[in-house]
Amino acid sequence: MPRIAIIGLGLIGGSLGLALKRANVADLEITGYDSEPGVGGRARKAGAIDNDARNIRAACEDAALIVIATPILSVRPVLDEIAPVLGEGAVVTDTASTKREVMRWAEETLPEFVSFVGGHPMAGSERSGVDAADAALFQGRPWAVVPSVRAAEGAVQTVVGMARLAGANPSFIDAAEHDAYAAAVSHLPLVVSTALFSLASSSPSWPDIAALAGSGFRDVTRLASGSPDLALGISRTNKDNLLHWIDRFGEELRRYRNLVENGQQEEALLETFAKAQLDRDTFLLAPPRPPEPAPPSEVSSPGEQFRTFLVGEYVSRRLKQLETMTQARPAEDDELRRKLEGGD
Amino acid sequence: MPRIAIIGLGLIGGSLGLALKRANVADLEITGYDSEPGVGGRARKAGAIDNDARNIRAACEDAALIVIATPILSVRPVLDEIAPVLGEGAVVTDTASTKREVMRWAEETLPEFVSFVGGHPMAGSERSGVDAADAALFQGRPWAVVPSVRAAEGAVQTVVGMARLAGANPSFIDAAEHDAYAAAVSHLPLVVSTALFSLASSSPSWPDIAALAGSGFRDVTRLASGSPDLALGISRTNKDNLLHWIDRFGEELRRYRNLVENGQQEEALLETFAKAQLDRDTFLLAPPRPPEPAPPSEVSSPGEQFRTFLVGEYVSRRLKQLETMTQARPAEDDELRRKLEGGD
Repeated sequence: MPRIAIIGLGLIGGSLGLALKRANVADLEITGYDSEPGVGGRARKAGAIDNDARNIRAACEDAALIVIATPILSVRPVLDEIAPVLGEGAVVTDTASTKREVMRWAEETLPEFVSFVGGHPMAGSERSGVDAADAALFQGRPWAVVPSVRAAEGAVQTVVGMARLAGANPSFIDAAEHDAYAAAVSHLPLVVSTALFSLASSSPSWPDIAALAGSGFRDVTRLASGSPDLALGISRTNKDNLLHWIDRFGEELRRYRNLVENGQQEEALLETFAKAQLDRDTFLLAPPRPPEPAPPSEVSSPGEQFRTFLVGEYVSRRLKQLETMTQARPAEDDELRRKLEGGD
Repeated sequence: MPRIAIIGLGLIGGSLGLALKRANVADLEITGYDSEPGVGGRARKAGAIDNDARNIRAACEDAALIVIATPILSVRPVLDEIAPVLGEGAVVTDTASTKREVMRWAEETLPEFVSFVGGHPMAGSERSGVDAADAALFQGRPWAVVPSVRAAEGAVQTVVGMARLAGANPSFIDAAEHDAYAAAVSHLPLVVSTALFSLASSSPSWPDIAALAGSGFRDVTRLASGSPDLALGISRTNKDNLLHWIDRFGEELRRYRNLVENGQQEEALLETFAKAQLDRDTFLLAPPRPPEPAPPSEVSSPGEQFRTFLVGEYVSRRLKQLETMTQARPAEDDELRRKLEGGD
């Protein structure tokens, strides 16, 4: 039976497990591992995984698909740890917020007979940990898929199928493009949201200010409740893009400041806010979606597609192992023949 | 029967009507008026008001409580318009986002026998208009109450009671303090949220960027979907405070930029994000709430309290009118007596 391993059972790993279990794919077995004691057991009780592995290598041995859902700075150590136990044809993916470094780490650590396909689900919550896991977390959300150069086509389809099964909208993107765009739409908002909260909350009048905080303040500062590790991971692995967008945002903020300050520019101020309102309403009504990877025509449901590829990868790995054994035999035969024939 | 008039039947006015009708106060009649044709009828059909007044003055004549829920820059013209028809003891309140100018306008326009009590419910939605009205919009949200110097105690209690009936948490605040704090927690977030959206959406790569936008981007940019009139109104009536907070935010952003840029400061970066996370979690778990105005002890439910004050105001107005008539009589009597007595 093909097996999936999820390494890291926080909000993302736990929600992925729940979503995949809910998709009810026949014979799908999910093994989970989390470095924090007790988390694996809670994930199993919550129904996010079938088995709670005793260690990270045990989780990955013989797994057809390995999902690394740890904080970004743990991805490299996890790759180092699991590389020696991965089977031929195994597919490895991740869920980290930046992709260039992750692709480089995978290239440096994984054996050639393993396919790495980077991934980034654009979903989150202000809550974290497996207890906040939600089967619907990825529903309708983008899931960036970044195939490595040498990933097998079947491996890419496996990861696309998994994202689709979880309810997300998968699309292919290049690692450099991903990091540039994610900086604008995810990493800059994280910095801005957190800075907005820390500015207000560091005021001596904070108790009085907070008493006036309504739903708008809560929404705009939501990302300040995210994990500090995420901020550090992004800052280390996507610094150039993040600095670029912080600087551009500083300029945009000065433009707004001038509109507010200059009473002669009321028309320009109205136009600026009206344009943002219109553009955002357009964005909400018809969010731009890149063309989705076409599903193969011969299988019907997303669950079947995913299983077909998962099974396909598993079968092709076994075939390769058999082939290796077959290729080994003639040599043994030669040796045997020589012995039997009594050679030199 | 005491009557409430709601002027402006958008998201706030409409939601207030729905919330008050849902509170089921006996004999409460709500008349509404909106300058946009058709809106009054839609509000009546939605159950937000009982009567759709043919004009603004007809709505306010003989009303015990008038709520001005128009865009902020319309508050002054509305006050000018209704001042001549307000009855003795009428209570006037508003829902505008800034309070210093509104209090000045009320002082300049309203007759002395009317009580003005400023109000600001800290609630909103990215949708607007009466069709987005929601009886639960104010549930658990702060509602700032700013009594004018000469407002009668009963008038203040009427507005507090109305906010409470709508489900909000009313609290008293000074107009200058309100505007300073609201700039930090409401007006700066509006500018930041809008600037963040307009920056991303003005990029030539916007379609690709938008395809990666998840729930975080949506939440943080939500205020960009607000009314441009609100931005202009705030900019005109709270410019000093808004500029102050934009500048402070610019400094805070530079602090974050330095943390991201300088790889030697990883500990400081982690500390900064961890502190924001902790402070925000604390804020969410136990939002600071100023002491609520104590409800009078002799009445039981908020609905009864509100009605008592509303009726009280109505009765006291009638009493004053009677008193005026009574006071007038002696003069007439004197005149009559002099005539009868045949004086000088």
